[in-house]
Amino acid sequence: MKSDFSAEMKERTRAADAVVLKALPEESGLQKTIFSAMRYSVAAGGKRLRPLLMAETFRFFGGQDQASLELFMAAIEMMHTYSLIHDDLPALDNDDYRRGRLTSHKVYGEAMAILAGDALQSYAYETACRAFDLTEDPEARYRIMRALQILIRKPGVYGMIGGQVVDVELTGKPVPKETLNFIFELKTGAMIEAAMMIGACLAGAGEDVLAQVEKAAHDIGMAFQIQDDILDVTGTEAQLGKPVGSDEKNAKTTWVTFYGLERSAEDVRAYTGRALDILAGLKAGEDVQEDFLFAYIRWLISREI
Amino acid sequence: MKSDFSAEMKERTRAADAVVLKALPEESGLQKTIFSAMRYSVAAGGKRLRPLLMAETFRFFGGQDQASLELFMAAIEMMHTYSLIHDDLPALDNDDYRRGRLTSHKVYGEAMAILAGDALQSYAYETACRAFDLTEDPEARYRIMRALQILIRKPGVYGMIGGQVVDVELTGKPVPKETLNFIFELKTGAMIEAAMMIGACLAGAGEDVLAQVEKAAHDIGMAFQIQDDILDVTGTEAQLGKPVGSDEKNAKTTWVTFYGLERSAEDVRAYTGRALDILAGLKAGEDVQEDFLFAYIRWLISREI
Repeated sequence: MKSDFSAEMKERTRAADAVVLKALPEESGLQKTIFSAMRYSVAAGGKRLRPLLMAETFRFFGGQDQASLELFMAAIEMMHTYSLIHDDLPALDNDDYRRGRLTSHKVYGEAMAILAGDALQSYAYETACRAFDLTEDPEARYRIMRALQILIRKPGVYGMIGGQVVDVELTGKPVPKETLNFIFELKTGAMIEAAMMIGACLAGAGEDVLAQVEKAAHDIGMAFQIQDDILDVTGTEAQLGKPVGSDEKNAKTTWVTFYGLERSAEDVRAYTGRALDILAGLKAGEDVQEDFLFAYIRWLISREI
Repeated sequence: MKSDFSAEMKERTRAADAVVLKALPEESGLQKTIFSAMRYSVAAGGKRLRPLLMAETFRFFGGQDQASLELFMAAIEMMHTYSLIHDDLPALDNDDYRRGRLTSHKVYGEAMAILAGDALQSYAYETACRAFDLTEDPEARYRIMRALQILIRKPGVYGMIGGQVVDVELTGKPVPKETLNFIFELKTGAMIEAAMMIGACLAGAGEDVLAQVEKAAHDIGMAFQIQDDILDVTGTEAQLGKPVGSDEKNAKTTWVTFYGLERSAEDVRAYTGRALDILAGLKAGEDVQEDFLFAYIRWLISREI
């Protein structure tokens, strides 16, 4: 079972990868350096967590319009990548490496890295709004419009950027508990909410269902982030995707420093359980525990295979 | 007549100013520094060229839906301001002052200036897409969707950012004639096209009219940019909004260095004439020469009052 899941996940990750890369601009024209810088960072890989969650939520709710879905999968990964490029800049985290490769500003210089981030934010919207050109059906257009609103709001000042601002301001300072919650919810959580809500929305879910999906995604985001803090203490570099103990080294306030390992592990279980219950409740009467979405969420949070 | 125009323009600029500032987020919440940084740069003023051109084009084509228009006016000015904040960064133009005030990174630091630019790009879209919430009429929604597409594409990698990338790459290098054209068309022209096209689109113009408006706006953008190069040699600081001779000082390739003053002045007249002819042609049979839009375009290009 586990190796089945692992193979299946690899296959779906590869498919998401192809969808994302296909949507990037051709590297031609006078401005081709920017196209190359955009592709360099997007192609660096990673779990493709957001597009995969989007696609699996879409499938879970019986979505049909694959072409629109793929545009939004690419868009959310571009959005995520823009935030990483700007995060890594010397004025922010000043990271030379990400996912084992030199960061954008180390390869293309700071000016081009700033513009590459700007370009990916912009091109994420450009990609998503191509979905409008695929249909003249007012209902499909309404779904795309609603999905676009989510894609616009969740990474914004009341979402991802808002969390990032507070994180930057508090670097090296003591972080109150409520603020840690705020940063988790906005900086990481908002984009997981966006991914799952857009998947459901494009599949035709109404506002009631979207609100439930938002709650489930919120809890998944919290569990994911708390588990990240736990793995930083207990995990292997492979599980974590970055050197172990880096939070401690940076004297970072984490869930574990506030609540300890045991309570943190309980919180992960509680958030995950609640999220899966909400999702299962949306398909009452069906056995969804073996659904790939459920397996994927469980894996995401344990990151053990 | 001239003083009438001048008073009228001041009044309409003040109105546009109020529309733009009203749309910014309240300065509250944990992330309030970013709201303050966003407002600081947007409130720095300027001609409000893009929102004014949008509003006047909207009025010219008989637009009625003022609430949607105002959201897009605010959005395009936020988009323009984000590009200025990032332009001024140390890694790009490294400017300490703009419009007589310290630039964003001098006041808020580099990290926050990068995030303020990101936030304004994001909030521009967030503001524009609030227009969707104002109506359930499918035709109005279609116009808003089309306007949003323009707002997304024109500042993007095939528009403003594309021009900016080429400009940055060629700083201090010889610029071929065709490339100067490319930079003018993308870096400045695309946003003028966006402003006028969105105004026409929200007023209900169809694709044929939009294509004509795009052509007229293209020519206005060229005339505006060439006139900028002329004024850098012949103008006063008040006309130019920056120190005279700064292009020469920076050994910048301009329209004047390629074609000389006389030919440049001819080009301004030719582009302007063509733009106004196109617009007049869209209201065949009406006398539009005294329309405020026409007066405003003539003023923009001469910048003499």
